[in-house]
Amino acid sequence: MPSPSSSSLPRVGDSVRSVDTPALVVDLDAMDRNIAAMAAYAKRHGVRLRPHAKTHKSAFVARRQLDAGAVGVCVQKTSEAEALADAGIDDLYISNEVVDPAKLARVAALAARVKLAIAVDSLVGVDRLAAAMRAVGAGIDVFVEIDVGQGRCGTTPARAGELAARATSRGLGFAGLQAYHGGAQHLRTAATRRAAIERAMAAVAIAKESVAAAGLGCPLVTGAGTGTFALEAASGVWGELQCGSYVFLDRDYADNEPTPSAPAFEHALFVKSQVMSRDDVHAVVDAGHKSHAIDSGLPTAWRRDLVFENGGDEHGILRRGRDALPGLGETVWLVPGHCDPTVNLHDRCVGVRGGLASGTVETVWLVDARGCVG
Amino acid sequence: MPSPSSSSLPRVGDSVRSVDTPALVVDLDAMDRNIAAMAAYAKRHGVRLRPHAKTHKSAFVARRQLDAGAVGVCVQKTSEAEALADAGIDDLYISNEVVDPAKLARVAALAARVKLAIAVDSLVGVDRLAAAMRAVGAGIDVFVEIDVGQGRCGTTPARAGELAARATSRGLGFAGLQAYHGGAQHLRTAATRRAAIERAMAAVAIAKESVAAAGLGCPLVTGAGTGTFALEAASGVWGELQCGSYVFLDRDYADNEPTPSAPAFEHALFVKSQVMSRDDVHAVVDAGHKSHAIDSGLPTAWRRDLVFENGGDEHGILRRGRDALPGLGETVWLVPGHCDPTVNLHDRCVGVRGGLASGTVETVWLVDARGCVG
Repeated sequence: MPSPSSSSLPRVGDSVRSVDTPALVVDLDAMDRNIAAMAAYAKRHGVRLRPHAKTHKSAFVARRQLDAGAVGVCVQKTSEAEALADAGIDDLYISNEVVDPAKLARVAALAARVKLAIAVDSLVGVDRLAAAMRAVGAGIDVFVEIDVGQGRCGTTPARAGELAARATSRGLGFAGLQAYHGGAQHLRTAATRRAAIERAMAAVAIAKESVAAAGLGCPLVTGAGTGTFALEAASGVWGELQCGSYVFLDRDYADNEPTPSAPAFEHALFVKSQVMSRDDVHAVVDAGHKSHAIDSGLPTAWRRDLVFENGGDEHGILRRGRDALPGLGETVWLVPGHCDPTVNLHDRCVGVRGGLASGTVETVWLVDARGCVG
Repeated sequence: MPSPSSSSLPRVGDSVRSVDTPALVVDLDAMDRNIAAMAAYAKRHGVRLRPHAKTHKSAFVARRQLDAGAVGVCVQKTSEAEALADAGIDDLYISNEVVDPAKLARVAALAARVKLAIAVDSLVGVDRLAAAMRAVGAGIDVFVEIDVGQGRCGTTPARAGELAARATSRGLGFAGLQAYHGGAQHLRTAATRRAAIERAMAAVAIAKESVAAAGLGCPLVTGAGTGTFALEAASGVWGELQCGSYVFLDRDYADNEPTPSAPAFEHALFVKSQVMSRDDVHAVVDAGHKSHAIDSGLPTAWRRDLVFENGGDEHGILRRGRDALPGLGETVWLVPGHCDPTVNLHDRCVGVRGGLASGTVETVWLVDARGCVG
């Protein structure tokens, strides 16, 4: 495995000023406040919280969320589940479909050693999962995923009962419905997000009728993300929230008009960069899109009015805003447009206590499931 | 370090059909043809070839390029140089600036154990590099980078002589000029690329005059990329080509109008994906932008007329083109929009001989410098 020169690894107790760039840095004070705020919100509204670990891919962060009251975590991939299970997380839900028989054998093997659930959206998927579970003699809970408006995975709501019945007839545990509207999370206005979640509620109602018509109860509806969770929590329909991004809060979520009644979160994840080239009209930092994902737009410079332009894989270009250009060698903190794929670019995360300006490295954790896309 | 379940790792001799998805797969026949074509081209035109290893980040590929006649490789980052040196590559050029003293100490330590050169574009950078080299008692060659039109790093051409003189006065070896026009590589028409490289030639001429006025010779001009190298090679100005992407050829380069006289390259790098959810109007594959970079646009489905839509971090959405939708579980080969940051997402690369349809895994190599952004 690639490993940076040992001299470049930050050590506990180092000043944040000495952390090599570019580096993925978490403001632990801000992260702790985000974790506490979401945990308190879920408790107050009587809903379970199962944060999505696809955001942080780290057992370190998952344990903080579990310690604050989360019932377990979601993951999106089998290999992500394996990596977090290896790191000690023992209640996992793969909120996504797997239909490959070889991969389902791994799902079954994992279900034999941790508490595991998985989403299904096809009869073929149910049958193959059941066959894999029989081969190891283990049980697993399934959530039938319905498409609530995103147009990606999920069966039509009216078919939910058929899939639930097939699952139970094949010896799988029907745990409820997966109803996540990914497309609604980044709708900019509160009103458009509300309208989207109201349509999702209507889809869930149809799915629940379909399940009831199949003679089954629906133990739980799980879903929601950082952009909409206050709507799902208030609906009385969802019993479990899957929000992930709240823990770090990317730039793109901060661009949303807030949902009334939702707690506010803070940016907690940053890329520390440094000016490596400069002239009178622009400065070049040593972080490009091998250091931060740009699928949701470019990063912004933290608390500086500067314009960030795409400088390619290894560079970022800064131009003046109201603030002057930083000097050669100066640190520039970047707020990534999208935290999840940004974290996935880094092997390690540097946890800093006491602020970005002059704080101290409290811990450095491995991104356990970095690169686990299979 | 994260490591996939051993049962999911492809083994030499396996059929490509059994490779778990998503996976980074190289068609070795196509890669070998690309390497041979570029090596033959450089030889025919009397220019040195120093391929850019930021594309593949892998000693395995670097060795193939060296075996075909490359004089060494370029890298973009100090940690990339360290990783490739650790993997046995011993002639490296960091075609980028480093100004951080702690990182320059690593550059100096590396220069004491392999042949190393580096780019400079500031007096501060020259002075700090010289101090770092003195501390270890080693020598290093520097190329003065000039901005030939990209507007990113590089000094103005007229200042090249001042920097070269400062370098020699500080005991560094002045090896020539770094003149790379990143912005010209993806200009779509041959004529606009030609115009850009003609302007770059004019900038190099000014820089060479400046160097001569400082009483120095200019041993080499190094630069060029996969989109323009035939222009630099024909110019009589550049003595070394730094092309990297030709080895894999991303979708975005294939979208360029060819440069007359340039050899043609083939797509050699693919993401193997699989349909994991499907209805009558769309199919969802298990690869999103945690598996392929989208900074240069979305991937395309290889040899299928399908429309690829962004499905987020872990999913891709396919709609019908002239071809029918693939079925649940079916393999879909994706051609990434941009190879360099795509490779950087993966720990391993699966090398297949005999074609994607029914070939055999010949080798699996580590992406040695994956994640080495510092």
